[in-house]
Amino acid sequence: MFESLTAEIIAIGSELLAPDRTDTNSLWLTEQLNRLGIEVKLKTIVGDDDARLEEAIKDATRRSKVVITTGGLGPTEDDITRKVTARALGRRLLLDEQVLAEIRQRFQSFGVSMPERNSRQAMVIEDAEVLPNPNGTAPGMFIDHQGTAIVLLPGPPRELKPMFENYVAHRLTSRAGNQKVVRRMLRVAGMGESAVDEKIAPVYSRYENPQTTILFNQSEIEIHLTARGRTEKDAETLLDRLSEEIEERLGNSIFAFAGETMEQVVGLKLSVGGYTLAVAESCTGGLVAQRLTEVPGSSKYFIEGVVAYSNEAKMRTLGVEPILLLHHGAVSAPVAEAMAEGIRKRAGTDFGLSITGIAGPGGATEDKPVGLVFVALAMEGNIEHRKLIIPGDRHLIRWRASQAALDLLRRRLI
Amino acid sequence: MFESLTAEIIAIGSELLAPDRTDTNSLWLTEQLNRLGIEVKLKTIVGDDDARLEEAIKDATRRSKVVITTGGLGPTEDDITRKVTARALGRRLLLDEQVLAEIRQRFQSFGVSMPERNSRQAMVIEDAEVLPNPNGTAPGMFIDHQGTAIVLLPGPPRELKPMFENYVAHRLTSRAGNQKVVRRMLRVAGMGESAVDEKIAPVYSRYENPQTTILFNQSEIEIHLTARGRTEKDAETLLDRLSEEIEERLGNSIFAFAGETMEQVVGLKLSVGGYTLAVAESCTGGLVAQRLTEVPGSSKYFIEGVVAYSNEAKMRTLGVEPILLLHHGAVSAPVAEAMAEGIRKRAGTDFGLSITGIAGPGGATEDKPVGLVFVALAMEGNIEHRKLIIPGDRHLIRWRASQAALDLLRRRLI
Repeated sequence: MFESLTAEIIAIGSELLAPDRTDTNSLWLTEQLNRLGIEVKLKTIVGDDDARLEEAIKDATRRSKVVITTGGLGPTEDDITRKVTARALGRRLLLDEQVLAEIRQRFQSFGVSMPERNSRQAMVIEDAEVLPNPNGTAPGMFIDHQGTAIVLLPGPPRELKPMFENYVAHRLTSRAGNQKVVRRMLRVAGMGESAVDEKIAPVYSRYENPQTTILFNQSEIEIHLTARGRTEKDAETLLDRLSEEIEERLGNSIFAFAGETMEQVVGLKLSVGGYTLAVAESCTGGLVAQRLTEVPGSSKYFIEGVVAYSNEAKMRTLGVEPILLLHHGAVSAPVAEAMAEGIRKRAGTDFGLSITGIAGPGGATEDKPVGLVFVALAMEGNIEHRKLIIPGDRHLIRWRASQAALDLLRRRLI
Repeated sequence: MFESLTAEIIAIGSELLAPDRTDTNSLWLTEQLNRLGIEVKLKTIVGDDDARLEEAIKDATRRSKVVITTGGLGPTEDDITRKVTARALGRRLLLDEQVLAEIRQRFQSFGVSMPERNSRQAMVIEDAEVLPNPNGTAPGMFIDHQGTAIVLLPGPPRELKPMFENYVAHRLTSRAGNQKVVRRMLRVAGMGESAVDEKIAPVYSRYENPQTTILFNQSEIEIHLTARGRTEKDAETLLDRLSEEIEERLGNSIFAFAGETMEQVVGLKLSVGGYTLAVAESCTGGLVAQRLTEVPGSSKYFIEGVVAYSNEAKMRTLGVEPILLLHHGAVSAPVAEAMAEGIRKRAGTDFGLSITGIAGPGGATEDKPVGLVFVALAMEGNIEHRKLIIPGDRHLIRWRASQAALDLLRRRLI
């Protein structure tokens, strides 16, 4: 077993606790740390609150071998990271004359004199190494505290990123030993979360490394695998073995082995096969076309889409016979098939894909509930359809219907 | 000064510690809690790690009056929230027969029998109130522990949100004091971030309450206003005054005063005016149609959309003259106008809206760079167009182009 180096990230600043702010620094740092073989075990976001921050730093230092704080190094009263970290570690805060001179110098280079309050940024924690900040006035700090590395980084990404890359990464590498962390994401369509888990739990639960997490996301199951190894290749080998075993259990229901989206997978298969596609949508309102064309280069295989929202559009542009609409209604298997064949003929493509359904909240009838969706696929000499009852709200029903339609095409292309 | 109730949010799940995952639940919860006058003081993200989670729950319970956990209530081995919370609070975990029956019932309603592992979701912490989950199998819990409210919510947003709104909000309201926090979001189209700030900084900087934050989001500027008051009405009055002053400065560029989306605003105007619309898209590939039809009831005004990705489709389905494509190219003002008029005629609508452009990364020529987009609007007796050079990657260019097209229609409908 590997003992992996564990890290915690503490993001500091009251503004990060507003409902519209995401802490993007910690995502970036996680990626960098993972690359160095360091696993992030916990993240905390704390406001400009002395007591809570002190506790957070103390707890993190006790639990983890790497603690990185971001933010709170500015020149104002509510930039408390320096003084609170010093207190949490039981160290003094000292004025560093050289840092002070550098900050003064920086202001002078812009032709202004240093505001008095910026001298606060020259206060350095006892025995900390100072990390230069070419993009700002706040220097960072690296502290070795009873075997734990504590790193204080500024909040602005353009100051934080180069500081981490130039002055922190190599210091951590030497502590990480030579263990690497590699992640992989498999995506599954057409199965429920518990059904997936029931099938693959006997497989993944045999392994502590890789670790497996199953996630339900819109209409997909995501299987996240994380492996640790002495080299990236070692970790990849572990991932290969587990993902092969998972594939044996789930087969074709896995549509992506490296986190690709359904539209990327379908697009690649169309492209490789030299096929062309046209799409006719009712309830999804253009979502399938939009997803397919989000992929760069999709103009090679995606020829035309029609959003036939009204019955008139279905007749006029897709050539659906009025009698079908009359007898079966717009949400029916015969109309779905006629739409698929209609768009295929209009666009002269290899495949015609269609969707008609009731996305809600209105539009349901006694025998046609919200969530009833038909998807159909037409090709030379063959038309097939699927009937679905999709749970969820309007947004989810539309998304899941688009996924089911693309999945129908994907399975045909295998 | 008001003494406000303080809350902590603990997001649980190893997948949330991956570099590509944001914890959007906690943003939404922060907004809801703020509305109730409850301030969020700390957020923690912790993996499926018994020891760290137990410590996080213990610490939070000691420090804060409201503790909300999200996630980890699923049916699998790594869903540890139930058992670890019970342990942290020193309470037992008991099988709730009624909850078990409801979960069984839910599976039966989908025509399948409950997988054995789901019985784990019927384990309830001693003396907890069970919070129903109409959108999933995992019930939530509300625990009153030595004066602190501990709330366990499921991770999927579509389960978490209604559960909070229906079963948690009112329980917390009765604990919150009499200070209310009210937020409002104005949305601006067609102006840059610094231009907006330059115009309105002299206005909003005069106020400490409401607080103003300007955010740049895809192609919109969002102006977030947060006011505090003894009653919601007091806070609303403060917001009214400031947003009126902001409107004086920005005029028609503000398209939403209550956080509505562009497609909602346009849809409402079409609906109220009794107008109909059809859309012809090239580079946006169905995005405009998809956005418009995401609004419930859009079938009233949205008649038809065509994604004319190939030149053939532009001629065949939109009636664009070959000579226009030959002389000006597909990405040109004359073709944009012909597409708008073509779809209007085909669908017989009041308005025809079109987009053609180069979303990249490929497709640019010497005189037509990536980001060049034409949008056009046709109506009885009038066609107009706009030429845009849009910065960003493929995804952003497409989104901003769709926004510009909808904004062209919105301004016409004023």
